[in-house]
Amino acid sequence: MPVASLEAAVHIGTKEFIKGFIAGQFILGVLIFFLVKVFFFRSGEETRIELATRRNARKTYQPKDHIPISPHAVESQILTKTLYDVHMHPVESCDWLNVFIAQMITNYRTDNGFNNRIVHVLDEVLNGHTKPGFLGPIHITDFSLGDEFPLIKGVRVRFAEPSANLRTEIDFEFDDQVTLGVETQVLVNWPKPCIAALPVALTLSVIKFSGTIAIEFVTHPDSPTSHLSISILDDFVLDFQVCSLLGHRTKIKDLPKLAALITSKIRSVFVDEIVWPSFKRCHMPRFWGDVDEEGVREELEELVEEIKHA
Amino acid sequence: MPVASLEAAVHIGTKEFIKGFIAGQFILGVLIFFLVKVFFFRSGEETRIELATRRNARKTYQPKDHIPISPHAVESQILTKTLYDVHMHPVESCDWLNVFIAQMITNYRTDNGFNNRIVHVLDEVLNGHTKPGFLGPIHITDFSLGDEFPLIKGVRVRFAEPSANLRTEIDFEFDDQVTLGVETQVLVNWPKPCIAALPVALTLSVIKFSGTIAIEFVTHPDSPTSHLSISILDDFVLDFQVCSLLGHRTKIKDLPKLAALITSKIRSVFVDEIVWPSFKRCHMPRFWGDVDEEGVREELEELVEEIKHA
Repeated sequence: MPVASLEAAVHIGTKEFIKGFIAGQFILGVLIFFLVKVFFFRSGEETRIELATRRNARKTYQPKDHIPISPHAVESQILTKTLYDVHMHPVESCDWLNVFIAQMITNYRTDNGFNNRIVHVLDEVLNGHTKPGFLGPIHITDFSLGDEFPLIKGVRVRFAEPSANLRTEIDFEFDDQVTLGVETQVLVNWPKPCIAALPVALTLSVIKFSGTIAIEFVTHPDSPTSHLSISILDDFVLDFQVCSLLGHRTKIKDLPKLAALITSKIRSVFVDEIVWPSFKRCHMPRFWGDVDEEGVREELEELVEEIKHA
Repeated sequence: MPVASLEAAVHIGTKEFIKGFIAGQFILGVLIFFLVKVFFFRSGEETRIELATRRNARKTYQPKDHIPISPHAVESQILTKTLYDVHMHPVESCDWLNVFIAQMITNYRTDNGFNNRIVHVLDEVLNGHTKPGFLGPIHITDFSLGDEFPLIKGVRVRFAEPSANLRTEIDFEFDDQVTLGVETQVLVNWPKPCIAALPVALTLSVIKFSGTIAIEFVTHPDSPTSHLSISILDDFVLDFQVCSLLGHRTKIKDLPKLAALITSKIRSVFVDEIVWPSFKRCHMPRFWGDVDEEGVREELEELVEEIKHA
């Protein structure tokens, strides 16, 4: 049967072709696999040894220690890289920051919980162990954080005088009525306790506060940590308004001597505390302490997860 | 003895004068004391009753609740008081802030403890439970926070589009080389674990990052709390440089497909996470939580002490 034999031959030929096709692919695949394995992959034995050594000698990468260069070089480098010329650069306005701060302050002012908490803490402090014996309980009668906002008039960076650190100087102005009113009584404890009492009502408002905040980066060549020193330059204006009311039946209103006494006391504490050369030391936020480290780690883990699923 | 009697008379007269002087002063003193006591002081009985009532009904002052006004009124009020016209106000430069931020960044960069801690946390995260089974231990081989500083080009306040909140827009530019290099191996776990491994070394650097940060105060008329929403507008530029090295004996360097894959993955996560309309929600710092309250109280107590001693 030539026809049948022809068909059979074709059939056999097709089968052989398929066999050959598969065999060819298989051989080439195995060859490539071994080539790749030999050239690119590390062998199983080596891998196991490598993994074991790594696991035993697990050592995290140590970033190179920065060689401390002289602080002045640091500052001039910063100025060069940020293109700031301390002698020529004009004073910059900062109206956007005013709007931003005003939004923050509005938020706190309208937060009733916040106000209540301040009043609560003030009340505890005034009636705490710092209260002298001749004063009766102190009662807060008025408290207000004002309606206006502090305005930044201009900002400049200059060298601080003796230390040659960079100092950011912020001119600000704050005309407002931040008020605290208290009521108490001065007790006469002689010849016996509480024999008489002089009722006193005081309302203290800050009505004008303007000046220049100076923020200085203090770096010591011999100490590794640096901090911020915040102070107010001595051309500041700080005006108070003191309303007082003394007496039980007959009342004396706004005793000028008392107002002057209170104002001068508060001013002198203010000057001692924060007016240059006094300053508030403010440590740089350490992005993570022991508590935060956990949070940062979780955040990073989430990020890694997301990158994997993206 | 007229002389003697004259002397005696003078002597008697002087004595009587002194007696009269003292008596007069005493009477007047007592009179004034009683007048002051009656008119200005509260009497002992009343004082005791008053103190007792106060002590029993000790109630701190409640600041008046702020009536919430419509959020848009708040914003226009803020703009009026800070003299900012969102339509006309020019974009402000902020070079002083660049210098300030550069100082902060320099401080962190030169802090070796800070760098070590980042590397430590990264190492733990990469080798933690997010690591898939086919990867060997991941080793950090390079880490650098760069040398340059981000520069703020301009800041403006505008109304955000659908919500009509105020939005601070900060244009920034950061050309630097923030680098993370890792080394690991892809394990072939079939037909049995660790039969072969493909060593992979990757170095990823951010070389250019510029765009606009938008910080928006989100206030809802029906919710009392507001928060900050921070996002990056979608005209940002974020360029990576990926160096890769694959293989054990024969090495393939900088496979373009791999670089494209990694870059696109990181970009897509970045876009999903922070590019507008996605945003990071940031709660307003609450000046004191329960922990801080103690600190604030102590600070205030010290201040009161100082005012007393001033």
